[in-house]
This record gives sequence, C-alpha cells and structure tokens, in this order.
Amino acid sequence: MEENHVIGKINAPIVFEHLIQAATEAEREAANALPSIDLDLHQVQYLQTISEGWAYPLTGFMNEMQLLESMNMKTVTDAHGKRHLLSVPITQYVSDDEKKALEGKPAVALKCSAIAGDKVLAVMHKPTFYENRKEEICTRTFGTFSAKHPKAETIMAQGNWLISSESTRFFERITYNDGMDKYRFTPREIVEQIAARGADAVYGFQVRNPLHNGHVLLLKDTREQLIKQGYKNPILLLHPLGGWCKDDDVPLDTRMYQHQALIDDGTLPAEHIILAVWPSPMYYGGPTEVLWHASSRVGCGLTHFITGRDPAGVKHPEIADRDLYDPWHGQKLLVHQKSMLNGVEVLPFKVAAYNKVNQRMEFFGGPGCNKDDFDFISGSRMRAMAKNNEPLPPGFMSQGGWEVLGNYYRNL
Amino acid sequence: MEENHVIGKINAPIVFEHLIQAATEAEREAANALPSIDLDLHQVQYLQTISEGWAYPLTGFMNEMQLLESMNMKTVTDAHGKRHLLSVPITQYVSDDEKKALEGKPAVALKCSAIAGDKVLAVMHKPTFYENRKEEICTRTFGTFSAKHPKAETIMAQGNWLISSESTRFFERITYNDGMDKYRFTPREIVEQIAARGADAVYGFQVRNPLHNGHVLLLKDTREQLIKQGYKNPILLLHPLGGWCKDDDVPLDTRMYQHQALIDDGTLPAEHIILAVWPSPMYYGGPTEVLWHASSRVGCGLTHFITGRDPAGVKHPEIADRDLYDPWHGQKLLVHQKSMLNGVEVLPFKVAAYNKVNQRMEFFGGPGCNKDDFDFISGSRMRAMAKNNEPLPPGFMSQGGWEVLGNYYRNL
Repeated sequence: MEENHVIGKINAPIVFEHLIQAATEAEREAANALPSIDLDLHQVQYLQTISEGWAYPLTGFMNEMQLLESMNMKTVTDAHGKRHLLSVPITQYVSDDEKKALEGKPAVALKCSAIAGDKVLAVMHKPTFYENRKEEICTRTFGTFSAKHPKAETIMAQGNWLISSESTRFFERITYNDGMDKYRFTPREIVEQIAARGADAVYGFQVRNPLHNGHVLLLKDTREQLIKQGYKNPILLLHPLGGWCKDDDVPLDTRMYQHQALIDDGTLPAEHIILAVWPSPMYYGGPTEVLWHASSRVGCGLTHFITGRDPAGVKHPEIADRDLYDPWHGQKLLVHQKSMLNGVEVLPFKVAAYNKVNQRMEFFGGPGCNKDDFDFISGSRMRAMAKNNEPLPPGFMSQGGWEVLGNYYRNL
Repeated sequence: MEENHVIGKINAPIVFEHLIQAATEAEREAANALPSIDLDLHQVQYLQTISEGWAYPLTGFMNEMQLLESMNMKTVTDAHGKRHLLSVPITQYVSDDEKKALEGKPAVALKCSAIAGDKVLAVMHKPTFYENRKEEICTRTFGTFSAKHPKAETIMAQGNWLISSESTRFFERITYNDGMDKYRFTPREIVEQIAARGADAVYGFQVRNPLHNGHVLLLKDTREQLIKQGYKNPILLLHPLGGWCKDDDVPLDTRMYQHQALIDDGTLPAEHIILAVWPSPMYYGGPTEVLWHASSRVGCGLTHFITGRDPAGVKHPEIADRDLYDPWHGQKLLVHQKSMLNGVEVLPFKVAAYNKVNQRMEFFGGPGCNKDDFDFISGSRMRAMAKNNEPLPPGFMSQGGWEVLGNYYRNL
C-alpha cells in the first residue's frame, strides 16, 4: 500500500497526481514538427482522463498487455507488480493508413482540432501498434452479442489498430471553453478543496442524469448516516460524468445548470458540496463500468462511494423493454470488490421513487412500503411533461432544477 | 497462503482434495426420495470437476456472486476472503418448469441417467435459483458477437435459470465405463503417484489433440531444460481434456489410445510420464480458458505448466479463415497472471512445425530458421491423408500413434 496522504482531517492511502508538464519552447517546436494524430472529442476526453490521473496507474493509452489484463481481469498491474482495479478499455486507435505513416517514427504528436486548433497536447514517444480487437473489446466490456450497443457502435467505427508508447508527455491541461471548465478539477485540486473545507468524510456520487428529489433524499440521508457513525463534517463530491454520452442523454451543460440550480435554491446545501465534472466518457457497461466509476475516484480524497440500482445501465440494444444488465449486479460486484478500492468504503443504496400519497420521493421497498403508492418517473416521462407544459408532481424535483430541465426538453 | 504440502521431494503450497463422501444407507434412502435433476453428460463432467477438487475453491455449482465475480474478474473469493483464479462459468441450469417444481424444496438430488441410471450422485441442500444470463456469460467468456461459437451454442440451449445451493454433498465418484476410467485420477491420486515416482519437478501439459512429434520435441525439450536448471527427476503430467468437445475434435478414447501408443512404442518414455484424463469440458475460450487450464492443475503437485500458441483457440464462428483469438494472447495473459498460480511456474513455448528438408519436427522461428522449409500439418490435412491412404511425412508422428489415428480418420 502507498504511504498515507493527510488531507486535512482525512488520511487517504492514495492520491492521484496529474501527469501534465508544460513544454519548453524548444520542446514545443520539436513537437510541432512531429507527425500527428487529430483526436476527436471522445478521444481527447480519454487523454484528459489519463493526464489528470483519473486512470491511475496508466501513464498513457493502454498498451497491449494492459488492455489484455483489463479486458480479462479488470485490473492493470503497475511497474511494481501491484494490481489496480481498471475495468474499461482506455485506448487510442489509428487507421491502416495512419499506422503505415507512423510506424517506425520516434514520436507522434496528439492534437485535437475540435478544441485546440493545431496545438500539440501530448507526445507519444516510441509508439508501438497492436490490433484493435474491436469485437473482443466490445463483448468483454458490454456483455452483449449486439454491435448496436451505443458505445460498441463507437468502438466498431474505430480504426483497426491501437497505438501505445514507451512514454507519453502531456503538455497541456485539457479545456473545452464550453462554460464548464470552472467545474473541471484534477484529483489533486479536489483534495485541496476537501482539506480547505475541513471535511472528515467525503462521499462521492457519480451521476449522468438530472437530480430529482430522490437523489437529494439519498444524498442527505447519506450525510445523516455518516454523522450517526461519528463523522463531524461529511461532504459530498457531486461528480457528474463530463465525457461522451449517447445522443438521447441530457447534455453536460444542461445537467450542470440543473445541479447548480439545486445548490442555488438551497435544495442541496452549498456548504456540504463540491460540484465537479469528471472527465471520462460513458461506456454503458453496467457492472464493468461501475468498477471504473469507483476506482477512478479513489485517488481524490474520497472516503466513501455511493452506488445504486443499475449503475451505467442501458436498455438491451435489440430486445425491446429489457435492461441489458441485471440492475443489481453492478452494486453487488462493487461491494464484493471493495477491497480493491484503496480503503474507500462502498455505500450501496436502495431506489427512491415518487410516493403519490405522500407527494414526495421516498425510499422504495422499505418496511410498510405500499408498492401501489409509488410512481417511477423516467426521463422520457419528464420530457413528455415538459413538452406538454404539464406541471411536475409536487415534491418530485426542485423548482429551480425543473426550470432548467423543462426548458431543455421543450427546446429539443 | 496455505500450509506447505510435502509431495515426496516437492513442496507444494496447495493440494486440491476431493469432496466426495459416500452416503450411508439412511442418507441414500432419503436422497432417493428427493426431487431430482437428470444431468446430461456435459453437466455431469462439471459435477465431477467440482467434486474431485479441480475447481477449487468451489464446493458446488457457482452461486450468483461467484459467477458474477468469475465472469468479471476471472476469480472466485473463498470463505476466508482469499481470491483464486477461476475464469470460466461452472454452473447448473434448470428450465422454467423445473424451477417451479424445485423452488422452496429443502434439497434436490442430482442424477445422470446417461452414465448412472437412477443413482443419486449428489444432493444440493437449500437450493436457490438465479437468472441464467446466457448472452452475458457467452460474450464475457468467448469475446465474440456470435452465438454460433460451439460452446456458446450449448449455453444458449440451456434452461433459463441457474441453481446453486447452501451446501452440496457429493455421494459418488463419477465413472463412465468407457474404458478410460483407469486414466481418471483425482488431484490427490496424482499427488500420490508423483510422490511414489520420487519426482522433484512435475510439468503439466494440457492437450485435446493427438500428439505429433512437435509435441514430443517440446515435452522432451522441457525435461532437458528442467534438468539444466538443476532438477534431477522431472516428470510430465500428460493431462488430456476428457470432457465435452465439439463434434469435429478427435474423441477422448482415440486420443488416449494414441497417447498410450506413443508411450508403448517408446516415443514418450514411460518412466517420465503420468498419463491422466482431466475431467473438465472444453470451452474454446482462448485467453479466458487458458487461465482455467492452469489454475485447475495447480493443486495436483505440479511445479510447472506448459502453455503454447493459441491455447483453447477456435476459428471465428462466422468469419472465414480467421482465428477467434489472438494466438499469443492466452500465453501472454497466463505468464502475466502467474502470481495467481500458487507458485506453479509457467513455461511458454514456441510452435514446432515439420521441417521438410530435415524431415523432422523443429521449433519454428528460431535462429537460422528458413520459413520455406516448414510445413504446418493440420488435423484436416491428417484426416485427408488417412482417407487417401497417403503415408505421413517421415518424422512427423510415431508409427504407433499414426496407426491409431489413421484408423480413426478412415472410419469417420
């Protein structure tokens, strides 16, 4: 185990440090002369995820052995032989032509014209190439025969080769100028905020949807539980996923405005929250992905990680009305594997749903729960309500949050 | 780590003990009155694999959490929290109707009318049922979108539910009366043979094909290497897979006659060999399965395990002329994971092929190797040669072995 890291009142076994090191003028000039790959938005999010430390122990895109271990064992072994949970493929692809052009070159520059013009963001030294076994990657990650899985479609469209390197130099912090950069913090920056707040417990919550009062109930309930356990100042790391999502998910900016509205109107108390964007793209990988959601956060000062029903779930791509994953497998697997989370405790939780009688969100399935009193309100229901200018049921979502979300849905 | 086990001159960290405990008359009578499941041949091979100890730490068919861990992490955690490599699903299915009939019963008897009439082979106490997520099991195990993979076809044809139990009592040693029972040994019985031989190293070789002189070269070469390392009496555990195979594989009895012929004609020296049948069915799972081939043998006194090119490989079920797996991924993964093999050393090896000029099998790709001199002789080539009464190239296979195999091919 690594040495202890003192974060204010918290002792954390590990802190993920970023890998970014600005280029000198000479280095920049040399990098500008290299052959380059133009990453798309999806791929530059992986570059950011690695360079900020979220994909520890990776120090570059996965090489063949790392991908092979990750695909099969859901771990990556570091240079000292220590095994770390890392359950998802984090790779960079090239086409047949690109491979031909780049093979044998001493170094390759990575750019992203979509957000950074012609600027070199990183340099891969001594690149090597290996087969992009797309079918195997998809099936081992998503557990379905279907290539119509939303993330599988993006992988199947990739080039036929993966590129890794002996070492990668990250020159730049990735920013998007989308109004959300102010929420983008590295693990170390979150650690510093935690220390400044004087927290003695930090519970992380991964989310890729707007927050309704069921989430709020859960987040407040978690704080109360931690206080009952003896913690004096537990705070929440509200950590929405910032990367690629499927087209019908609510986009990042709308979600962030909605989350901020809940803080601004007091639904979520600002003094107990750090709101930050987590840079990773989504996988819709169910149990495989919930391991990633947790392992990626253990190095930013967390003491607890919340996991719920069907984390990273998605409908079966080809079978109507069927969830692709068992809705409780993600939580079960993560709780079972918690010894690999560097001391971070896993907090499993039940589903909250709208109680029509009591007109509020309540945990579903507790003692005395009457199933008929509950209504599960889906994203598509909310969307229909917004389009028809129907009011939300009272107590379902904060008014400020619904204004943001209703506007988004109406403008779709 | 478990205590040390002294096996003659070998210290082994672990020995797999069988779980079989004969029934008293009263127990047998009670078992006869239970509702029962009639296992087919494929499934009774799993029962045997578990009951003889090969699937350690399993003490019964996988429960939901064990399968979930195995599918995702390729491990199963034992009651003491220790993680063991176990990369393949070892489950028992039931149909919707069987589940309805068995649910709530205190115990279920397992029979196999194909080999044991109405005899109760085992009893599952306090059975529970969980979903047989066949698509997920197949894709995570075989890494292909295709349900036409030969083992996937058998899984997709299973019932919709899996059955596990709080405890399983194994009454009987599984025998088949197929003339091969004399080669079927439990791990403990192999340990005893190793001790009796006075071996100071035992290298295991998993095989599901007839042995040609390339295998013989490899097996002799391994012995020489071990002697160079200082071992005085290394012996080979020649351990052909005895369970279910796809239809066009050479069946067990022919393979065993062929292996025995090689021993009888001195091609493989009897004094350095234990020939035994390993009860597991085949998966055709490539890298996933090679972990199983190794982990299942670490508890029978092995000190070394050989792994070659494309272990447990198969053609892509739907794409012509393509191997499903990268032919070196199995070996790479196993070497990388060898710390999970309880001290057993992994011996990776190169391919041997027929050198037409030198008229013998040689390692392919070594220094001075001229590719054009080599001929790769496949099973279907051998089959054609046998049918056409063509002689095998001199030095390709022992004459005794070819007589067995040629006869089999001609009678197909």
